[in-house]
Amino acid sequence: MPIDRDRLWRRIEALAGITDPDRPWTRRSFSPRFIEGRAWLAAEFRASGLATSIDAGGNLVGEWAGTDPALPPIVVGSHSDTVPAGGRFDGILGVIAGLEVAQGLAERGERLRHPLKVYDFLAEEPSEFGLSCIGSRAYAGKLTPDMLALKRADGVTLREAMLAVGGRPDELGSRAAAAPVAAYVELHIEQGRILESAGCDIGVVTDIVGIRRERITVTGRADHSGTTPMAYRADALVGAAAIIEAVHAKALALQAAARPVIGTIGHLVVVPNAANAVPGEVALSLEVRSADEDAIDRFGAELLETTRERTEALRLTVRRELVSHVAPTACAALIQQAAADAARLAGYSSQPIASGAGHDGVFVAATGPIGMIFIPCRDGRSHTPEEWTEPAQAEAGARVLAETVRLLDHRLAAPGPISPAL
Amino acid sequence: MPIDRDRLWRRIEALAGITDPDRPWTRRSFSPRFIEGRAWLAAEFRASGLATSIDAGGNLVGEWAGTDPALPPIVVGSHSDTVPAGGRFDGILGVIAGLEVAQGLAERGERLRHPLKVYDFLAEEPSEFGLSCIGSRAYAGKLTPDMLALKRADGVTLREAMLAVGGRPDELGSRAAAAPVAAYVELHIEQGRILESAGCDIGVVTDIVGIRRERITVTGRADHSGTTPMAYRADALVGAAAIIEAVHAKALALQAAARPVIGTIGHLVVVPNAANAVPGEVALSLEVRSADEDAIDRFGAELLETTRERTEALRLTVRRELVSHVAPTACAALIQQAAADAARLAGYSSQPIASGAGHDGVFVAATGPIGMIFIPCRDGRSHTPEEWTEPAQAEAGARVLAETVRLLDHRLAAPGPISPAL
Repeated sequence: MPIDRDRLWRRIEALAGITDPDRPWTRRSFSPRFIEGRAWLAAEFRASGLATSIDAGGNLVGEWAGTDPALPPIVVGSHSDTVPAGGRFDGILGVIAGLEVAQGLAERGERLRHPLKVYDFLAEEPSEFGLSCIGSRAYAGKLTPDMLALKRADGVTLREAMLAVGGRPDELGSRAAAAPVAAYVELHIEQGRILESAGCDIGVVTDIVGIRRERITVTGRADHSGTTPMAYRADALVGAAAIIEAVHAKALALQAAARPVIGTIGHLVVVPNAANAVPGEVALSLEVRSADEDAIDRFGAELLETTRERTEALRLTVRRELVSHVAPTACAALIQQAAADAARLAGYSSQPIASGAGHDGVFVAATGPIGMIFIPCRDGRSHTPEEWTEPAQAEAGARVLAETVRLLDHRLAAPGPISPAL
Repeated sequence: MPIDRDRLWRRIEALAGITDPDRPWTRRSFSPRFIEGRAWLAAEFRASGLATSIDAGGNLVGEWAGTDPALPPIVVGSHSDTVPAGGRFDGILGVIAGLEVAQGLAERGERLRHPLKVYDFLAEEPSEFGLSCIGSRAYAGKLTPDMLALKRADGVTLREAMLAVGGRPDELGSRAAAAPVAAYVELHIEQGRILESAGCDIGVVTDIVGIRRERITVTGRADHSGTTPMAYRADALVGAAAIIEAVHAKALALQAAARPVIGTIGHLVVVPNAANAVPGEVALSLEVRSADEDAIDRFGAELLETTRERTEALRLTVRRELVSHVAPTACAALIQQAAADAARLAGYSSQPIASGAGHDGVFVAATGPIGMIFIPCRDGRSHTPEEWTEPAQAEAGARVLAETVRLLDHRLAAPGPISPAL
């Protein structure tokens, strides 16, 4: 197995250590710190023998040539940017492990038939432009002129910022038909507690869930709390409470489904929000995630059907508005199979798992089959300085990634077009 | 009946019209606009034959001497300050009606045995010093040096502001034993919809309710909404929802009590309050109002007993903290009786009603028996520019106030100490 555990860990520590000193671990996309991290990473890519460049979308790419120049590449990677005060593994792990796989194979004298490309996708986390997955959108030809015109607080446009990190945003238009990939495989920490709770080494991702966000507005009547007896009220917060409880009960009931549904009311605004005022209006964010697109489509309407009698009795009106809808992305069966086989061959336990968080694969999927490999992280913590995974867990992930790449290189023998739904 | 309806209405309009022009109806305590209103009011008092002065507490007082100089005064009045963008009747009505009663009696040549004092209490509404009922607190000897040292945003102390409106805050210490009143009667709009809904002309106030405010904090665990299955969560907002519904149900069940209880969750803070985060902590304001002090004391603990099983099952901890507690103030039976008799004599319907809002009477009650008379206001609206009552309704209130004063002057014959619990 071509993985040098110590080198893998040292590189993770080195890249994570390039952080804003007053708020570890922070390396915001497009920032000087990010560019510093990129420069370190590019030097490591080059020193490992990879042909290194920045693509039009501002992604850092290290390429190891395959034996068959006609084949599309197998792509591995993730991202090197972080959220503010984030962790040391989210993103970094997938990039460094990808580098380790390429370098390890090369050091052992193994050649793949497919080119192997290691990607550090630009700005996967929500950026100062209000947009995430910028590099993978660009890769898939999905970064629009409107997006390039987005401005951050200091007036700089995304186009200008991409130029500053070495991208060529003006060439993106001509690349609308994105270069196909033979397979995209990303190693990532789980960011949840499922693997840890199950004592399982490897998660083979089945889907990146779809995310539907709706705004539910409950309208009653604001009144003076002291002078309005209970029977006269139309208290929007009481109706909102019934909806909050119904979301929880409904999602809990859908836990046992083949493709579970997660439902969350995470954001709530009460008007007027004063101790002595009966709430007149409450706006709730409903977020529903599932690999089952039909289930997330239906959730909101079914929900309000269950609470209608209650909210009407409270003299409230309730309306729903769509905020955003991202369809689920299925991981290719061929990649899931390769990852599960790879784990077994390497002596690790594995289980299927849905990714509840979004990843670059959602966009890369437009160019070919995608898959993801998860490793546990302590107590499920992520996007926080406490984010942690053990060296042995990171090593396990990198080994399984390497073996998955090997198996895919072998199994993706068939010439001709690659189906994203293999 | 010594009420000149047109004069009453004209004066209400004239005083209300002294407003900040860009946000009617606003005459904030201590502001130049307030001082302008006071000057107009003092001129009206004087023109009506009342001996007019500012007392040590900064209250405007108009006195009409009685025939028996040994008797303590009957006091009528209310306040001339408003909330920002408030209404034209809250406060004003009671002062102008008090003036009308004194002037009307004098014009008819009637003399009362008791002195009749018309009060415009200083700063009944929450002031820029964060304190309400400043003048009535002062009147009752309850304005402490700590309160006088309160500063508003521009650094001015309450003591300085009281000096600027003609008060003598440094004399307050020597008046700690406040001058007793024979009776205090305040006419006010209901600020609710009980009288209007019942089609009733006059509310005879039985109590000014006690108000207890507690902070309830529900603590769970903040998690990423996408990566945390329902079964792993400790969602503080779901527990808060159960508490919100329980408050409503409990207070609704106590509506039929002899002294009903009102329970409100009006203010709520969710942390972190993001669409993609399981809420980790929710802070709720619980406000309980009732004339039954025991009931408001018990409410919070009983409430959490009913929700304990649910919040424990959700893995949440819940704690209560006392924010404030104002005991209920009973209106004197003698004044209630006089007001009910006065309504009947004047040909108006009346019913007992609790005041759900606080009033100056809460403090004046320390100096003698108090009572209040309510008239309906349209749709229960108050503290808003839409606040409205009809001229005939204002007239009814003033007539009943006049008749109540007459009856009390007669019935409060007994010499010796006046019991607040007559």
